[in-house]
Amino acid sequence: MKTILPAAVLMAGALTVSAAIQSKTIEYQQGEATLEGVLVWDDAVSGPRPGVLVVHQWMGLTDYEKHRAEMLAQLGYVAFCADVYGKGVRPQNTAEAGAQAGKYKGDRALLRARVNAGLEVLRAQKMTDPKRVAAIGYCFGGTAVIELARSGAALSGVVSFHGGLDAPTPADDKNIKCPLLICHGADDPFNKPADVTALENSLRAAKVDWQLIKYGGAVHSFTQPMAGNDNSKGAAYNERADHRSWAAMRAFFDEVFK
Amino acid sequence: MKTILPAAVLMAGALTVSAAIQSKTIEYQQGEATLEGVLVWDDAVSGPRPGVLVVHQWMGLTDYEKHRAEMLAQLGYVAFCADVYGKGVRPQNTAEAGAQAGKYKGDRALLRARVNAGLEVLRAQKMTDPKRVAAIGYCFGGTAVIELARSGAALSGVVSFHGGLDAPTPADDKNIKCPLLICHGADDPFNKPADVTALENSLRAAKVDWQLIKYGGAVHSFTQPMAGNDNSKGAAYNERADHRSWAAMRAFFDEVFK
Repeated sequence: MKTILPAAVLMAGALTVSAAIQSKTIEYQQGEATLEGVLVWDDAVSGPRPGVLVVHQWMGLTDYEKHRAEMLAQLGYVAFCADVYGKGVRPQNTAEAGAQAGKYKGDRALLRARVNAGLEVLRAQKMTDPKRVAAIGYCFGGTAVIELARSGAALSGVVSFHGGLDAPTPADDKNIKCPLLICHGADDPFNKPADVTALENSLRAAKVDWQLIKYGGAVHSFTQPMAGNDNSKGAAYNERADHRSWAAMRAFFDEVFK
Repeated sequence: MKTILPAAVLMAGALTVSAAIQSKTIEYQQGEATLEGVLVWDDAVSGPRPGVLVVHQWMGLTDYEKHRAEMLAQLGYVAFCADVYGKGVRPQNTAEAGAQAGKYKGDRALLRARVNAGLEVLRAQKMTDPKRVAAIGYCFGGTAVIELARSGAALSGVVSFHGGLDAPTPADDKNIKCPLLICHGADDPFNKPADVTALENSLRAAKVDWQLIKYGGAVHSFTQPMAGNDNSKGAAYNERADHRSWAAMRAFFDEVFK
């Protein structure tokens, strides 16, 4: 792991941000791959604080994740936007996004390794309290953070927002050591009811501490304004479910970071 | 509706309560039936405030509901513990409870009338803001407050805690005008998955604003310490799910009482 941005650039960033929210790009490695994430924090907060890993949706790390990280920093957390795909690998269209997401969904071991690499970057920051680290993810990133938990990673908790829900390796659910909060659109056409039931059964059998919230009227991508407002497309923003799921995450963090 | 307690008794009550939480018994009518509920409030709060109707589980109105009402009063709400069964009708065992609950579950029109009568008592209180009134219920009371919503009652919201979930009259769901929050034990053996799915489908078809939270590892009665701790009995207390569902209710009220 190394920090790309020189101090001068970081200072310039500090000068142009009116609030106390700061960010810097961090380059790091997983195996032979070079990844590039973004750390976001509030420099008005002193000392170690809980850390939250943010895992991107299928388009890769975008301004959307950085905005969520800023929202987390405003809550007093230090957030790190992980990069699963690799430095410079930023899909430009849904075909490219599908190819990238499919690659990692089809190789869960690689997906776990990539997300764990991001977790270690976050945990290694001086401002991070290493015993209080959680992970959240959106769509593809929701699947990714559940896989992170399945890898046995030491975490305070995991939150999936409209993640792809499945249970490809039920035996691994016994490795999950932290509470899971799964925020799910009740009308999400990309998650078959049978898949959701299979996941619930797998978590139940493994005696995992889990919660699943179904938001009526919400489809896939319900936290993402860029998804538009047409539920018939299967993915659409839903302001109500967005606000409710964020509030649920906050209450969950209040509990697990105690 | 009339207040049973004379002023002297009420004053005595006020003198013996160390905090500012006050309560009084209220006798009221539904048709020919006399019902007896309990109003609870914090007299350190001035002016109209949101009201919360609390509907009891199958054993009828007990200290359990009064304690929940006190917790609500401590949050600044005025709470009224409704009485569905009737003054003096307080089951002493599960056989009696089953008979009473069965009577009203089998006559949803009567159940709606009984719960609406309690709602009107709450709404008529001077300290209640009549435009901000919600209803919560436990087990049998969870079923009851969903029926209250189906009756078309003007409410800010409804919360069911381990309520019996079914959809006996799907056509009535179009009458539901308020958001529903359904807190459900994922391992509750008294709610068949098919019944839960039928309810979800009914609410979906009626375009109701609903949320359903499944708590992993929780069975029926998860908020009730008197249910014991043996999940194998199908009803048991679950501290985690109790605290989480109460936090979810609080966030829901923060939203709907705005």
